[in-house]
Amino acid sequence: MRIVRYAVGGVRHYGELESGDARIVRFQGDPFTGLSPTGHVDEVGDVVLLPPVEKPRIFGFAYNYASHVDETDREIPDVPVCFMKPSTAVVGPGDPIVYPADGEIVHFEGELVVVIGKEARHVKPSEAHEYILGYTCGNDVSDRVVQRRESAFGTLLIGKGQDTFAPLGPVIATGLDSSDLSLTTRVNGTVVQAASTADLLLPVPGIIAYLSRYLTLLPGDVIMTGTPSGVGPIRPGDEVEVEIEGIGVLRNPVVAENR
Amino acid sequence: MRIVRYAVGGVRHYGELESGDARIVRFQGDPFTGLSPTGHVDEVGDVVLLPPVEKPRIFGFAYNYASHVDETDREIPDVPVCFMKPSTAVVGPGDPIVYPADGEIVHFEGELVVVIGKEARHVKPSEAHEYILGYTCGNDVSDRVVQRRESAFGTLLIGKGQDTFAPLGPVIATGLDSSDLSLTTRVNGTVVQAASTADLLLPVPGIIAYLSRYLTLLPGDVIMTGTPSGVGPIRPGDEVEVEIEGIGVLRNPVVAENR
Repeated sequence: MRIVRYAVGGVRHYGELESGDARIVRFQGDPFTGLSPTGHVDEVGDVVLLPPVEKPRIFGFAYNYASHVDETDREIPDVPVCFMKPSTAVVGPGDPIVYPADGEIVHFEGELVVVIGKEARHVKPSEAHEYILGYTCGNDVSDRVVQRRESAFGTLLIGKGQDTFAPLGPVIATGLDSSDLSLTTRVNGTVVQAASTADLLLPVPGIIAYLSRYLTLLPGDVIMTGTPSGVGPIRPGDEVEVEIEGIGVLRNPVVAENR
Repeated sequence: MRIVRYAVGGVRHYGELESGDARIVRFQGDPFTGLSPTGHVDEVGDVVLLPPVEKPRIFGFAYNYASHVDETDREIPDVPVCFMKPSTAVVGPGDPIVYPADGEIVHFEGELVVVIGKEARHVKPSEAHEYILGYTCGNDVSDRVVQRRESAFGTLLIGKGQDTFAPLGPVIATGLDSSDLSLTTRVNGTVVQAASTADLLLPVPGIIAYLSRYLTLLPGDVIMTGTPSGVGPIRPGDEVEVEIEGIGVLRNPVVAENR
């Protein structure tokens, strides 16, 4: 099933995107507490697609593909390398990524994103699938200048946490095997990242086991699993697409901050 | 006013702690959308005090007192050094700090904590006070072994983000001038940190201006402003107290993880 969150007539709903992408079967409720059918069907052309989760906690993994570690001239970390992005960084499909007025080097990062379905603590890798609602596409937008300055002191927030720096969507795909999905990022139609999630250094079950060993994951949490090689700059006027097999295409324009 | 959040008979309320600390004037609502009097008064002995904000976003500042930078043998950062702690790290007054089963070096960090009262973006330091609801005490509990391993790769999550690693409370003190408050941390009654918030390298107005330059602060967000010198280890059986002038004492026992 491909779950979408959307607004129509100013009201927000969850629904199931039908094959063909033209219609949405509307649900009552949300996928974390329970969905029930309403009998209503919306035309995709009549709705605004929203980020698939409202104001989620966002956990991110860095240096989780060897190909990306290589391009940054680093060693493969001896510990999972994680951070958080604030909920206010989230935007949905089609929403603009706002290029900061004083931004210098801002990069896209196409990523597979896990959506947690139920509370998880001390979960074994073999049981991780029970806690996953599904998957979506994400763009872990990063201000490299700020990121480098913060990381030199061992922390990371503003480099990855600015408003609009976490596009998510377009759907939550359930029932997906995430062990070998093709991931493609395009800027203005040109392929810039092409990889398989089979190359994740710490794959999804290990990610959930690692985080839940230390902290309680909650329904609606999203985990950005890391980006493969090919990261590069975006500028106002660009359009970035992150496409993942079995999920769809997350497309966002880049616009200049207006202030 | 000293605002407390508490539970009585399984129901949660906000209230005003009266001088003398014996009684709470119960409110309806919450301090972010509006408080109104109920006419009801609770005895402090009959209630359980809760963390002053439910599941907040937590922003933290590192290396924000020169005295602490000195004791870590670092240089003063050339950029504000921030991170997030997940909401699941929060515990309230009297709640245990759970010492992880595989923890090796876990430190207390007494800190002044800002509670944001309304949405803030592009706020000037001179206007920051308009966005502050009040202040509470916090303990930025840190697993130094994990922190060092993560920070070596430029990120920080598990080192400061484990469940129970963010005790907050006991009250939100409103109308407080945070420019020169004495901050004292005690472990088992012995003073281990004694400083003034006058020594913050980036004081509260600058903190709010810096964060809101890049991201939208929301009502209920909390900002841990950094710790002065004197940090040190805690072990199961210890009791940590963080006391800040005009706010009160945040007291938490340390217990071993049971698994």
